[in-house]
Amino acid sequence: MKFALIVSHFNEEITAGLKKGALQFLNEKGFSSHQVDIFDSPGAFEIPLLAKKLAKTGRFNGIICLGCVIQGETAHFEWISMATTTGLMQAMLETEVPITFGILTTYTEEQAIARSQDNSENKGREAAAACWELVATLSQC
Amino acid sequence: MKFALIVSHFNEEITAGLKKGALQFLNEKGFSSHQVDIFDSPGAFEIPLLAKKLAKTGRFNGIICLGCVIQGETAHFEWISMATTTGLMQAMLETEVPITFGILTTYTEEQAIARSQDNSENKGREAAAACWELVATLSQC
Amino acid sequence: MKFALIVSHFNEEITAGLKKGALQFLNEKGFSSHQVDIFDSPGAFEIPLLAKKLAKTGRFNGIICLGCVIQGETAHFEWISMATTTGLMQAMLETEVPITFGILTTYTEEQAIARSQDNSENKGREAAAACWELVATLSQC
Amino acid sequence: MKFALIVSHFNEEITAGLKKGALQFLNEKGFSSHQVDIFDSPGAFEIPLLAKKLAKTGRFNGIICLGCVIQGETAHFEWISMATTTGLMQAMLETEVPITFGILTTYTEEQAIARSQDNSENKGREAAAACWELVATLSQC
Amino acid sequence: MKFALIVSHFNEEITAGLKKGALQFLNEKGFSSHQVDIFDSPGAFEIPLLAKKLAKTGRFNGIICLGCVIQGETAHFEWISMATTTGLMQAMLETEVPITFGILTTYTEEQAIARSQDNSENKGREAAAACWELVATLSQC
Repeated sequence: MKFALIVSHFNEEITAGLKKGALQFLNEKGFSSHQVDIFDSPGAFEIPLLAKKLAKTGRFNGIICLGCVIQGETAHFEWISMATTTGLMQAMLETEVPITFGILTTYTEEQAIARSQDNSENKGREAAAACWELVATLSQC
Repeated sequence: MKFALIVSHFNEEITAGLKKGALQFLNEKGFSSHQVDIFDSPGAFEIPLLAKKLAKTGRFNGIICLGCVIQGETAHFEWISMATTTGLMQAMLETEVPITFGILTTYTEEQAIARSQDNSENKGREAAAACWELVATLSQC
Repeated sequence: MKFALIVSHFNEEITAGLKKGALQFLNEKGFSSHQVDIFDSPGAFEIPLLAKKLAKTGRFNGIICLGCVIQGETAHFEWISMATTTGLMQAMLETEVPITFGILTTYTEEQAIARSQDNSENKGREAAAACWELVATLSQC
Repeated sequence: MKFALIVSHFNEEITAGLKKGALQFLNEKGFSSHQVDIFDSPGAFEIPLLAKKLAKTGRFNGIICLGCVIQGETAHFEWISMATTTGLMQAMLETEVPITFGILTTYTEEQAIARSQDNSENKGREAAAACWELVATLSQC
Repeated sequence: MKFALIVSHFNEEITAGLKKGALQFLNEKGFSSHQVDIFDSPGAFEIPLLAKKLAKTGRFNGIICLGCVIQGETAHFEWISMATTTGLMQAMLETEVPITFGILTTYTEEQAIARSQDNSENKGREAAAACWELVATLSQC
C-alpha cells in the first residue's frame, strides 16, 4: 500500500502543520516512510494536475492533497477555491483513484492556524484518514 | 432489483438517522436486506467516486447517497457541498445509473437533526423514494 | 415532430400548472397528444439523467423539463439548483438534442405559484416555446 | 473569413442593440453581409447548443453570442447565467472554435440599455471585436 | 525549456505590469527571450481556448496566463471569472500541460494596480514562478 502526499508551499507555515498531521496518522496506522511519497505544489490551483498525473502512474492507492487558501481583499479566494475543489473531484472521477481534500479555505489566518495544529482536529490528519478509509471501502465495491 | 446505499460517517449521529429512513422506505416497498448493499464513505467528498464505481459494476439498479455537511466557520462547507453535488451529477450522467442525493447541507446542527428524524420528512427516506421512482420511470424511457 | 415532457412531482401543485402551460402551447401550435410523451421525475436532481436518456433514444426533437425548487432553511436549494441546471446543460451539449429549462428556482412559494398560472407568463409555456423555437433554428444550422 | 452571430430574442429590444453593435464592428473591419450568418436563439440557455452545432459545421472562423439576462425576483438569473457562461466555455474548449461572450447579465434593465447603445461601449461590438482578435491570435499558435 | 505567456489586453495598463513581472522572473531564472513566446488574448474569457491550443502544440513546458477582470456594476464579473478559472483548470487537466493562473479578479481598480507593481507581490511574477515550479515537480512524478 502506497500513498502520495501533495503539499502546497503557498502559506507554507500552515501546510507544514497539515503535512505533519497527515504523516502522523499514516505512521500510527503502521505505514513506513517508504510508503508515502511527498510532492511539492506551488499553490492550490496546481494540485489537481499533480493529483491526476500521480493517480495515472498506478503507483499509489490514494492521493492526499494538502494546501491552504486564505481569503484576501479580492475575489481570488473564491475562484481558486472553486476551481481547485471541482478540479480535484474531476481528477478523482476520471482516474478512479482516491484523492482526498485537505485544502483549507479559510476567511482568516487564525482559522488556518487552528486547523493545522498538532491535535485530532488537524485537517491534514483528516484528509489522510479519509484517504485510508476510502481505499478500504473501494476494495469492497 | 438491488440498491446500493452509501453512508458517510462524518456527522455519524445524523447519517445514522438518514440510513434508518432510507432502509425503512425500502422495507415498506418490500425489498429484503439482501437487496440493499451498504457502503461506508469517510465524508461527503468521497461519495461521488464510490457512487461511480458501484454504478459501473452493473450490480445495482440505483445508488442512494447519504451524508451530512454542516456549515462551520470557514468556506469549507461551500466548496465541499458544491463539488460533491456536481460530482454526483457527473457520475450519474456518465454511468446512466440512478444516483440520488440524500446529503444534508445545513447551516446548523439543529437543521440536520430535524431532517434525520424518524418521520416522513426524513431526507434519507426521500432519497430512497427518489431512487425507487427514478428506476421506475427509466424503465419506460 | 415529437417532444418529451419531463415533469417533476416534487411541489406537484406547482409543476401541474407548468405542465398545463407547456401542453397548451404545444396544442396551440398544432401538436396532437400523440406527439408529446410525458415522463415523471421524482425531483429536480433526477431530471438531467432522464433528459439524457430520452435524448439518446433519438425519438424526440426536443425535451422540455419542468420542475420546481423552492428555497428552504438550508443550502439544499442552492446546490440542487446548480447541479440540475449545469447537468441539463451538460446533457444538452453531449447529446446535441434541444433540452429546455422550465424549472422554477424561487425564494418563496408565492413566486412559484405566480409563475405557474394559466397565462402568458407561465414558465412551462415559455420552456415549451423555447424548445419549439430551438428545434426550428437548429434545422437551419 | 466567416462569422456566425447568435442573437437571443428574449429581451429583444436590448439584443437588437447588441446585434447592431456587432454588425457595425464587422462592417468597419471590411466584412460584407455574406460573411456574417445570423441565427436566432429563444433565450440565453439555448445559445451553447447552437454555438456548438455551428462550430462543428466547420463553416465559421468564430461564433459571436449575444443575449441578455436581467435579474428578476427569483434565483433564475443566477443559474441561467452560470449554466450559459460555463456551457459556452465548454463548447469552445471542445470544438476549439472561437466563441465569444456578448451576453449581458445585469441587475437592472437600465444597465442592459446602457450596454446596448450605439457607441463604443456596446457589448455586442466588444464581443465581435474579441472574436475577430481571437481568430487572429489563433492563426499564430 | 520553453514557456508560452498569454496576455489579455483588456485592462491593458494592468496586464502590462503583470507581463513585466512574469518576464522578470523568467529572466532571473536564466531564460532567454527565445524561450518565452508571447500571445495576445482579447479578454479573460478567450484565454482558456488559447491555453488549450498552445498546450496541444507540444512546444511548451508550461503556459502562463495573465489577465485582469475588475468588478463593475453588473454580474458580468462573477460569470466571466468563474468560466475563465474553471475553463483553465479543465484545459490543464485535459492536456496535462502546466497552465498557471495570473488573472486578477479584483473589486476595484486600485486592487488591480497594487497587484501589478514592480515588486515581489506582482501576480504575474507569482504565476510565472508557479509555472516554473510545477514543471519541476512534474518531472519527478
